[in-house]
Amino acid sequence: MKLEIRQDQLAAELEALAAFSDAPGPAVTRVVFSETDRRARAWLKQLLAEAGLQIREDAVGNTFARWSGSSPDLPAVASGSHIDAIPHAGRYDGTVGVLGALEAIRALQRAAIHPRRSIELILFTSEEPTRFGIGCLGSRLMSGTLPPDRAATLRDGEGASLDEVRTAAGFFGPLDSVALASGHYHGFLELHIEQGPLLERAGIGLGIVSAIAAPATLRFDFEGEGGHAGAVLMPDRRDAFLAAAETALAVEAAAKATGAIDTVATVGICEIFPGAVNSIPSRVRMTADVRDIELARRDAVLAAIESRVRDIAASRRVAARIEVLNADAPASCSPLVTEALAAAADAEGAPFQRMVSRAYHDSLFMARLAPTGMLFIPCRAGVSHRPDEYAAPDDIAQGVRVLARALARLAE
Amino acid sequence: MKLEIRQDQLAAELEALAAFSDAPGPAVTRVVFSETDRRARAWLKQLLAEAGLQIREDAVGNTFARWSGSSPDLPAVASGSHIDAIPHAGRYDGTVGVLGALEAIRALQRAAIHPRRSIELILFTSEEPTRFGIGCLGSRLMSGTLPPDRAATLRDGEGASLDEVRTAAGFFGPLDSVALASGHYHGFLELHIEQGPLLERAGIGLGIVSAIAAPATLRFDFEGEGGHAGAVLMPDRRDAFLAAAETALAVEAAAKATGAIDTVATVGICEIFPGAVNSIPSRVRMTADVRDIELARRDAVLAAIESRVRDIAASRRVAARIEVLNADAPASCSPLVTEALAAAADAEGAPFQRMVSRAYHDSLFMARLAPTGMLFIPCRAGVSHRPDEYAAPDDIAQGVRVLARALARLAE
Repeated sequence: MKLEIRQDQLAAELEALAAFSDAPGPAVTRVVFSETDRRARAWLKQLLAEAGLQIREDAVGNTFARWSGSSPDLPAVASGSHIDAIPHAGRYDGTVGVLGALEAIRALQRAAIHPRRSIELILFTSEEPTRFGIGCLGSRLMSGTLPPDRAATLRDGEGASLDEVRTAAGFFGPLDSVALASGHYHGFLELHIEQGPLLERAGIGLGIVSAIAAPATLRFDFEGEGGHAGAVLMPDRRDAFLAAAETALAVEAAAKATGAIDTVATVGICEIFPGAVNSIPSRVRMTADVRDIELARRDAVLAAIESRVRDIAASRRVAARIEVLNADAPASCSPLVTEALAAAADAEGAPFQRMVSRAYHDSLFMARLAPTGMLFIPCRAGVSHRPDEYAAPDDIAQGVRVLARALARLAE
Repeated sequence: MKLEIRQDQLAAELEALAAFSDAPGPAVTRVVFSETDRRARAWLKQLLAEAGLQIREDAVGNTFARWSGSSPDLPAVASGSHIDAIPHAGRYDGTVGVLGALEAIRALQRAAIHPRRSIELILFTSEEPTRFGIGCLGSRLMSGTLPPDRAATLRDGEGASLDEVRTAAGFFGPLDSVALASGHYHGFLELHIEQGPLLERAGIGLGIVSAIAAPATLRFDFEGEGGHAGAVLMPDRRDAFLAAAETALAVEAAAKATGAIDTVATVGICEIFPGAVNSIPSRVRMTADVRDIELARRDAVLAAIESRVRDIAASRRVAARIEVLNADAPASCSPLVTEALAAAADAEGAPFQRMVSRAYHDSLFMARLAPTGMLFIPCRAGVSHRPDEYAAPDDIAQGVRVLARALARLAE
C-alpha cells in the first residue's frame, strides 16, 4: 500500500485553522463555544463534508465524521483530538490530531482502500479546561467518567451554565445522551504533538505512548480580611494573598520533594479580590495542576499540599477551602492499538520510541471506552501552550502516514 | 457662635452619594471618570450650586466651590477631599470630607457668619490609584508634585491615556494650568475617617493629625517562560508567578524586619499571564505599597525589597523589572491649622488626640502648597476600603462642627 500524504494542503489547513483566533497571530486563543470556536467548527465541518464523511454532533458538541466501511455494523475505528486552544496558545496542540486524521482518511480514500470497519474522525469538545475549569469535557461525558448531572452544574467564569452555553452554540438534547457504550469502538488512536522535549532530544520522529499521566486539579479559596494598605498594622493582618503565595511555593516544593522527574505541579491561576494597589487582599482563588505517571505518588503530593495549606491558613488566620476539581487515574494504552501503530511504523521504516505522556489528552478518557493508543510527533524544544509552539511539516506528514496505516490495519 | 449641623441631611446625602456605585450595595465602586463618577460629580455640583457656591473645574477635573468672603482678594481657606472609591470599598472614605465641608459651609451660612477670607470646598480628582496606578492625581498636579508632562504619559488598564479619559469626561485644557501658586491658599483642612483603630480604641471622637506617612508604590514585572503544565519538567521551569510569590513574602518580611509598628507593606495586585490552569505563568505584573512615617526607614525597606527581588529573579532565571511608581516624602501639618483645629475642638468641648496619619491623603500634597491640617474621626474597628466601613453620625457631626469653627477662625 502506497500512501500519498498531501503535506502542503495539510499545512495550509493548519494555517487556516490558526486564523480562527481571538489573539493576534502567531498566538491562538480559541475558547470552546466562543464565536471564534463556532466559526472554526463550521469551517472544519465543511472540510469533513468535502471528504464525503457523514457528520453527527452530540449534545455537548462532540463531532463525529464517519467514513463507512464495508461492514458498517461492526464497531468502528476512531481517531481525533480537539481544536480548542487556551489563551495565547499555539497552532499544533490538538489540531494536528484533527486535521491529521482527516488527511489520513483522505489518503486512504485516494489509495482506494476499502476498510471493512467504518473509520470515524472525532472532534472532542473542550479538551482544554479554560472555560469550565475541567479538561476533556467531551471525552469525559462520552466515556461516562463525568456524570451528566455533575456536568450540568458547571459554570464558566461569567457564571453561565454549560447548558446555557452549549445551547447558545447550537448543541441541544440531554447530556446523558452523550455517553457511548463500551464496545462502541473497536479502537481509538490520537495523533498529537509530544508537548515535551524527549523525541526532539533523541532525534526520533515518532513516539508510541504506553501510558498517560494522571492529572489532578485543586482549587483553593482563601478568605482573610481586607482593609486599607496604609492603616492596618502588620500584626493585625489576615492577608489572603500572602497565604496563597506561601501555598504556591508549597505546591512547587511538594512536587520537587518526590525526587521523581515525572512529578510536576503548576499554579497557573491566582485571582485576587479586590485587587487594588492600596487594598489588603481579602479573598484569593488559586489553582494547582499536579501530574504524575504513578497514581500513588501523585496522590501523596496532593496530600502533602493539602496538609501544608492547612498549616499556612492556620498560621495566617485565613480560611482555606480546597476543592478537588478532578483527580483522574492514569491510563494504559491497549496493545491492540500500540502494536498496530508499531507495525505501521515498521512498514514505513520509521523509527519510533515507546514513551509515556505527561500531558493530558482525550485519550485518557477514551481508554475507558475502547482500546486506545497515542502517536506522538516531536515539537520544537518541547514547547506547547505558547505562540511559538511548532511541529515540522515532515514530522507531521510521517505521523499522518503511520496513523493512516494503523487505522487501515485496525479497520481490516 | 452656635452652629447647627444638620446631621440627618448629611446622612441622607452620604447615602445618596453611595448609590452612585458600580458594585451592589453596601459595597461602593466609583472609579475616576467612569460614567458613575461623572453622574456623582453632576449630583454633587447641584448641591454646591444650591448652597450658592461659585464652581470652577480645572483641566483634570479638580472642582472648586467658592463662598466669597468680604475680602475676596485675600488667599482663601480651603477644605475638601475626594469621592472616587476603589473597587468594593465603603461609603465614608473621602466623601465625609467633601459632604462634611459642604455642611460646614452651610452651617456657617445659617449662623450668619460673614468670613473675611473666601472659603473654598475642593473635590480632588483620583485620590485613589485605581485607574492610573498613582494616587492623589489631582492634588499632585495642583501642588506641582507631578510634572504635567509625566501625567500626560499615564494610561489606564485599558491603555487609554489620561488626556483621552479626562477629555471624554469633559475636562479640557492643558494640564500645566492645574498647578496653583504657593500662597494661593491661606490654609487647607481635610476632614477624614481615621482608617485605623486608634481613636475608637481610645474612645476619643477627634484626631488632629501632626504628620502624614510617606507612601511608596513599586511595580514589578516578572518575565519567565511559559509552557504546558504537564510537559515541562520542574528543573526546566522559569515560572514568573513563583518568583512573584517569593517576592510577595519578601515584601512582608521587609516591612516586619524594621520592628517598627508604623512600617506597613502590601501586595494588592498580582496579575498572571496567560492565566490558565494548565499553563506555566510566563509573565506577572505585581505591585507593592510601602509606607512609613519615617522616610529613611521606608526607603530602607524599599532597598531591601529591591535587593531580594534581584536574588529571587536570579535564582529562578526570571527577568525582573522594578519601577518606582511613586515614593513621596511624609508631610508635616502646619501649626497654623492644627492650632485652629485644637482651638475649635476646645470651643466645642470636644476631646481630641494628636496623631499621625498612616493612610495617604490629598493633604500630603496640599501641604506643599499651603499650611495644611487634617481632622480625623473614628471609623468602626478601623475598617476602611471595605463595604463595612462605618462612621457614626454623631462622630461625623462633631467633626463637621469642629471643621466649621476652624474654617471660620482661619477665614477671620
